[in-house]
Amino acid sequence: MVSDDIVPTVSRRHLLQAVGATSSAGVMFAAMGALGLAPTAGAQPRNDSWVPPRKSDFNLTGRSAKKVVVVGGGPAGLASAYELQKAGYQVTVLEARHRVGGRTLTIRGGDAETDTDGRRQVARFDDGIYMNAGAGRIAQWMVTMDYLRELGVPYEVFTNANADAYIYNERSGATPGNPVRYRTAKADVFGYTSELLNYATDQGALDQKLTAADKENLRAFLRSWGSLTSDGRYQGGDNRGYSVYPSAWNEHGTPLPGPGSVAEVLASKVGQYFPFEINWEQSMLMFQPKGGMDTIYQYFLKAIGKQNVHLNSPVTGVVNTADGVRVTYTAANGKKRQLDADFAVVSAPAGLMRRWDTNWGSDTDAALGEFALGSPAGKIGLQYRSRWWEEDHRIYGGITETDMDLAHIWYPSYGYGERKGLVIGYYNTGANARAYGDLTPAARQRRAVEQGVKIHGDKYRTELDTSFSIAWHKVPYIEGAWAYPNTSSPRFKQLQQGTGQVYFAGDWMSEISAWQHGAFWSARYAVQALHQRVMTS
Amino acid sequence: MVSDDIVPTVSRRHLLQAVGATSSAGVMFAAMGALGLAPTAGAQPRNDSWVPPRKSDFNLTGRSAKKVVVVGGGPAGLASAYELQKAGYQVTVLEARHRVGGRTLTIRGGDAETDTDGRRQVARFDDGIYMNAGAGRIAQWMVTMDYLRELGVPYEVFTNANADAYIYNERSGATPGNPVRYRTAKADVFGYTSELLNYATDQGALDQKLTAADKENLRAFLRSWGSLTSDGRYQGGDNRGYSVYPSAWNEHGTPLPGPGSVAEVLASKVGQYFPFEINWEQSMLMFQPKGGMDTIYQYFLKAIGKQNVHLNSPVTGVVNTADGVRVTYTAANGKKRQLDADFAVVSAPAGLMRRWDTNWGSDTDAALGEFALGSPAGKIGLQYRSRWWEEDHRIYGGITETDMDLAHIWYPSYGYGERKGLVIGYYNTGANARAYGDLTPAARQRRAVEQGVKIHGDKYRTELDTSFSIAWHKVPYIEGAWAYPNTSSPRFKQLQQGTGQVYFAGDWMSEISAWQHGAFWSARYAVQALHQRVMTS
Repeated sequence: MVSDDIVPTVSRRHLLQAVGATSSAGVMFAAMGALGLAPTAGAQPRNDSWVPPRKSDFNLTGRSAKKVVVVGGGPAGLASAYELQKAGYQVTVLEARHRVGGRTLTIRGGDAETDTDGRRQVARFDDGIYMNAGAGRIAQWMVTMDYLRELGVPYEVFTNANADAYIYNERSGATPGNPVRYRTAKADVFGYTSELLNYATDQGALDQKLTAADKENLRAFLRSWGSLTSDGRYQGGDNRGYSVYPSAWNEHGTPLPGPGSVAEVLASKVGQYFPFEINWEQSMLMFQPKGGMDTIYQYFLKAIGKQNVHLNSPVTGVVNTADGVRVTYTAANGKKRQLDADFAVVSAPAGLMRRWDTNWGSDTDAALGEFALGSPAGKIGLQYRSRWWEEDHRIYGGITETDMDLAHIWYPSYGYGERKGLVIGYYNTGANARAYGDLTPAARQRRAVEQGVKIHGDKYRTELDTSFSIAWHKVPYIEGAWAYPNTSSPRFKQLQQGTGQVYFAGDWMSEISAWQHGAFWSARYAVQALHQRVMTS
Repeated sequence: MVSDDIVPTVSRRHLLQAVGATSSAGVMFAAMGALGLAPTAGAQPRNDSWVPPRKSDFNLTGRSAKKVVVVGGGPAGLASAYELQKAGYQVTVLEARHRVGGRTLTIRGGDAETDTDGRRQVARFDDGIYMNAGAGRIAQWMVTMDYLRELGVPYEVFTNANADAYIYNERSGATPGNPVRYRTAKADVFGYTSELLNYATDQGALDQKLTAADKENLRAFLRSWGSLTSDGRYQGGDNRGYSVYPSAWNEHGTPLPGPGSVAEVLASKVGQYFPFEINWEQSMLMFQPKGGMDTIYQYFLKAIGKQNVHLNSPVTGVVNTADGVRVTYTAANGKKRQLDADFAVVSAPAGLMRRWDTNWGSDTDAALGEFALGSPAGKIGLQYRSRWWEEDHRIYGGITETDMDLAHIWYPSYGYGERKGLVIGYYNTGANARAYGDLTPAARQRRAVEQGVKIHGDKYRTELDTSFSIAWHKVPYIEGAWAYPNTSSPRFKQLQQGTGQVYFAGDWMSEISAWQHGAFWSARYAVQALHQRVMTS
């Protein structure tokens, strides 16, 4: 738990005051440690900005829990419902689509989706094969990991980077059949940049910036990092990989051809993909729930109670009334319904809310107006009859990067050693996603496969079983992948107050849009604000 | 399969000759592709130096399979037995220890080991908790992956690198409670080295080596890789990580203090650990069998047949006779036994064979004399009552590096989300391994924990349940971790011929000692030489 799950806030402050009044600094520090406020060796400080509402809050104060309608059954909506319900609130979730999870959509065999153009696809994947059509990865520091633990969701490593995956930069000279592996690209880029920096250091070019001791430390690093020869040059080596690896007896292996010249390596632009691997959101290790990302939301659903979550129930209005909120929606049977409650937490995409019947006031309308619909993004899942990427290419997961319009290819992080498997054949955004989204599913597959063949050879076509593709900007009730808020806008701040009895939640209300982490934290803050109001009213 | 498993060698050449004689180059190329000889886009070329013996080899030639004694039930021995038996050879394996697997030892609750000093430990680990006391990781290109597939062994990612694991360089100024995370260390080292190289480039220091276009490509890489400001400076940023990460609303997070100066970052020597991550043997992704490394050998054992593998049967002599070999050993019941066979494959540590009764000739004796016993190495498995490294430190696997005598700390790559877990509290070699090995198990634990507390805080001590430690140089019938052969020695070459009816196998007979890959390939070559002799005699 990120949150302190023993001592509620109010009494926490009192405890510290009591200790502080009568104790030495050492005792005070120890008490803070017990409350998770003091740094302990190495440990990540807890995020103290969230104190979950608890049933005891009501018991202690004699107040009674309220009724809340949650609009939207994605990460923000279900986390809001879950946290409120844990504290005793009566919660009803209205989800417009036929399933919960929002953009954490996992597609399995038999799953059907119809896009806003009316185009329907049914997935023909085998049992055990799935495609994370939306969110796919979780970083260790994200609060998502805490929900996995709390809910008991099993998880495994998501392979966000792999030394044996490929880079294929067609616009910088790569030709079909000749992708370069990350390990080779890294050895060459780090080798040559180390050689150059070592050279500049030796030439005295950095004497204004570095002492003799600095230079010695720097050289020691560069020699090793860049696999430099004793005279400071990069000439390739083991780290580039082999076409046939060393084995036994005197089989020394067959080194890959190369390296190219420093000019060639720089011009190949392979290095543009390396920062991803040290990026704060994307660095390995990363994780995924076993069996598909939406597994998290099946666990949330079970915790909340299926009877409290209404599917196929698109909301058409959320209005503040004299003493609460009235939510109107179309029920699964097609009939108009309304629900009265004390509060609403609305977690739909901001751009969609503006089509509803609301009375939230011009300030809120203007603030929501800062959010367009989410940007386009697309993915295709290609089910293959064999795991040729493992057997022929020795790639057991990870991501191949390209400068083609398919952008990224993801190899699966599950099902190792099984017969079949599923590759994400494109994951693209912006204009590329729009271009693929405009095609029929069959044409999307053709385009993705034609490009993938250049990297992987004919099996990319001949071993293909079936595919399923998604265009997020065409998914009903979602209509986009993500929207980045202007978090420094006064209106963004204003939305945090909610309007009347209505609170807002969603990754778009966070510092880290497009991630479940952002959605969860926005839910926590909305729940906290709502609860604080109930507790102080 | 690395090997071509459809067409045996002899007929393969014939097929190509037949095709070549009557066909165009295109047909020839396609035929080669079908046989796995031609490069296909991206795919790893197969290692053609191994053609497994097959039952059909005997059927086609009217020869009968022979009887082989395999000495040693580690990776090389069991793979030799497995490959020979698949082709119809009658195989008996003699293993000196009470279990197969050799240095792929997995320790579970109840397992007992007695070292050469007579010190006995019994593991008290809980069900489901295990410690890979020896081999722990497998790279994608290694033939070990092919055996996992062929035998059907389930496997998962081994977390060999983690941005959130720590570096703790006490001798370079790190103080208790202040380890640095890899992500922070990388951001700082790559940031400053990028700044320096960018500066040198701008100063014209590299004008002899780089064109204007090269410099532009280089700058583009450095700006992104080093998170440089628009004026080319490194000033920290997101990639260093946060003490409290950004969440939602306007909670921007709490950046870590720093970065230090370029002099401080270089003097901290954190960069010395980075080459490991781009090393040809160690680059992620890596893998491990589910449930422990020795699972592989349980599968081998099942394939070979338990009745063909004799445990607790240390060999005392291997002599060539007029028409075969005679192997003497002490059976499990303590009685002296002998086995006569056509051939022997001996996979014991080379240093130990010299204690046996042999008649291998002075050349072979001299060649084996080039191998000392394996070097010392040690590990301790610390079972904890909670997974505090995950909950408090947000470290879900990977390796923490130190300059203390414990060397490496491994967090587990399995059991995520379970209640307990096992950390490898030291993994060291050479003098450090000898120092720990000389201590009692309790003293080893105390020393490891005392150091680990500096990095992780008190829970490293207070949450500890139980431990088990190994000193490889004191394990009976193994007596060392690994020995590196001088592969350019004429005597190394000579050992490949075997002596009389005796062949040798083991990682020490490979280009990549200390890895299962090397052991397996040495087994394959020994089997192939033996089989070729049978087929041509």
